[in-house]
Amino acid sequence: MALIVQKFGGTSVKDAERINNVANIVTAVYREGNDVVVVVSAQGDTTDDLTEKAQEINPKASKREVDVLLSAGEQISAALLSMAIEKMGYPVVSLLGWQAGFETTSDHGNARIKRVNADRIRKELDQHRIVVVAGFQGVNRYGDITTIGRGGSDTSAVAIAATMHADLCQIYTDVDGVYTADPRKIPGAVKLPSISYDEMLELATLGAQVLHNRSVEMAKKYNIELEVLSSLTGERGTIVKETSSVEKMLITGVAKDDNIARISIIGVPDKPGLAFKIFSKLASKGINVDIILQSIGRNGTKDISFTVEKNKLEEALEQLQSYEETWGASGVVSDDNVTKVSVVGAGMESHPGVAAEMFEALYSRNVNIQMIATSEIKISVLVNKADGERAVEAIHDKFFANYN
Amino acid sequence: MALIVQKFGGTSVKDAERINNVANIVTAVYREGNDVVVVVSAQGDTTDDLTEKAQEINPKASKREVDVLLSAGEQISAALLSMAIEKMGYPVVSLLGWQAGFETTSDHGNARIKRVNADRIRKELDQHRIVVVAGFQGVNRYGDITTIGRGGSDTSAVAIAATMHADLCQIYTDVDGVYTADPRKIPGAVKLPSISYDEMLELATLGAQVLHNRSVEMAKKYNIELEVLSSLTGERGTIVKETSSVEKMLITGVAKDDNIARISIIGVPDKPGLAFKIFSKLASKGINVDIILQSIGRNGTKDISFTVEKNKLEEALEQLQSYEETWGASGVVSDDNVTKVSVVGAGMESHPGVAAEMFEALYSRNVNIQMIATSEIKISVLVNKADGERAVEAIHDKFFANYN
Repeated sequence: MALIVQKFGGTSVKDAERINNVANIVTAVYREGNDVVVVVSAQGDTTDDLTEKAQEINPKASKREVDVLLSAGEQISAALLSMAIEKMGYPVVSLLGWQAGFETTSDHGNARIKRVNADRIRKELDQHRIVVVAGFQGVNRYGDITTIGRGGSDTSAVAIAATMHADLCQIYTDVDGVYTADPRKIPGAVKLPSISYDEMLELATLGAQVLHNRSVEMAKKYNIELEVLSSLTGERGTIVKETSSVEKMLITGVAKDDNIARISIIGVPDKPGLAFKIFSKLASKGINVDIILQSIGRNGTKDISFTVEKNKLEEALEQLQSYEETWGASGVVSDDNVTKVSVVGAGMESHPGVAAEMFEALYSRNVNIQMIATSEIKISVLVNKADGERAVEAIHDKFFANYN
Repeated sequence: MALIVQKFGGTSVKDAERINNVANIVTAVYREGNDVVVVVSAQGDTTDDLTEKAQEINPKASKREVDVLLSAGEQISAALLSMAIEKMGYPVVSLLGWQAGFETTSDHGNARIKRVNADRIRKELDQHRIVVVAGFQGVNRYGDITTIGRGGSDTSAVAIAATMHADLCQIYTDVDGVYTADPRKIPGAVKLPSISYDEMLELATLGAQVLHNRSVEMAKKYNIELEVLSSLTGERGTIVKETSSVEKMLITGVAKDDNIARISIIGVPDKPGLAFKIFSKLASKGINVDIILQSIGRNGTKDISFTVEKNKLEEALEQLQSYEETWGASGVVSDDNVTKVSVVGAGMESHPGVAAEMFEALYSRNVNIQMIATSEIKISVLVNKADGERAVEAIHDKFFANYN
């Protein structure tokens, strides 16, 4: 007997059939004698429908009212799932964010969970009820409804699991686990039985988009074992935990991120402090910089290149161009026709040959590398967008050819 | 400067255009320097859509979960109306039932408001905000969401008005006031400038369906002045208050109720207590009996006739037939091809000729009267359904011919 937290995303509850399917999964775990807390997202299109209604009335509506509006989505799916579980004859109760004790900051639309007061959830579990919690939402100190932004319901689920010391937190989604590469693109991609928090974090950052970083970070902090799995296949998924497996795999995955653009500032005078000024200017506008490369130029100047999210490119260029003269640079150029390809693996820490093998794979397929960045468990390269798919294939073949 | 509570029904907020229209009405009253609390119902079809979703999953869902589901409807319309008011540049805040302090009994789907703790509403008004409250909903002592059943949002509005001693409670609806008869049927029907609580109660019972009885009863108890008016015409509506006007009108309205059926128990032995047994049997099944007529039959027997709501007819007949022999009655017959036509007016208390004039009007158009019931301020007759329209016309002509 264990305490299991399960989270189901919007596609898993999109219609009556899928809701009944979720009810089957939930009650099967309950029947085994477990305490079950279920966190649900809004049904497939509900959030979009509600957003559209708001847009029509006031595209600049306050975030407070947007939160009141959108939180109705999870309220609806929580009630419907509870009804499906009732129909199967099991005791169940739905709780909204404020009822489930989600106390958050007041940052509407992107609130942080300060604390989960799980008294009510515990009381319901003591009554042997399945507890269905509306994800994504909480309440601030003034008693106003908040939503917790990106990755919302995943984060809700992990927060409950952390607060209640759950034995497992299952994240049901429309993929059945974490793969060595995007399985829709790379036929040889393999599902990993397990992966470490750090590897999962690197993969999430790199656009694998299975789990939101925020939920993985919280799981890591409180050492909550996550399982990523599909609500349709019924197969075991991928476990995310502190150490991935006894025999550490060299690398666990290859990921590609197209949402990226490169900026180069050309001919910057070679004086101390300039890089700091440039990047703090961008940071002050909330623009995150990723791979940074600085090269020695001619005549005591240097070129500084870096990548930003593609949708921040324009804003970044505006910032930089207004300071170009002040800094004495000779020009700013950009390229959004690029892709970042990365390999991730805790094993590479103790295995210095990975970078060389990766570069060899790319060379063998004639892929030109524009920039390189490395961390303890990740190597990323920037390549032409047209070469992206080929690069992922090449690297995946190199490291996973004999995995199956 | 006054405190004004305004309630808008589902058709008044059914789409963006109508919501903007409501925002115009609300802000106009606010601009005049008034404190404004607005109560909204769910948008036109939302409640039906949500009910349909629930039906598909579990037609026998618990009332608790149905309340969680349905209360999302008013949540959505409250947020949308607030957004429309924001767009016009006015300070506004939406509050759900639990935030607005609606404390109710636990009778899900039909909860009674025990108390409105209006602290939060007052605080928001002190900040000069327009307060938009989701109607129809509250919270019970366990912190669970409840809905307050029929006439819900009207009752929510009157409860706030009563608690906060509002100067006026405006009920915006799709008719522009209370008429002397149904204006869609009777061309000469006239809008009343005012009407008393008691008259309004009689008219509501009689199927005029402008205001739900529960809200009128509450308004009467706390002496809250109501105004029934249209959200589209911008005209003054009908004021409902303690005394209707200085020169009391003889009668204020003619109403027709088709949702009725007549039952007769034939040949009941003329012994004491039998009527009590019959009607307590029906009461125990929640069947309300309206007009009752007892006639002396032959050979020491009597016939007892009465009316019930049409949709309760079958259930009533089942109850009666199973006891027919016990009571020694010779038969039970029923007729659902009947209509109740009533005149209401506080003036008739001191004017005994009204009944005679009414019967004369019916006689002049050859309408046969099956049953008659009277109260201090109402006279009802049961007639053939086919005669219903003609009966209303005849009576209306008699009393209101010179009103315009």
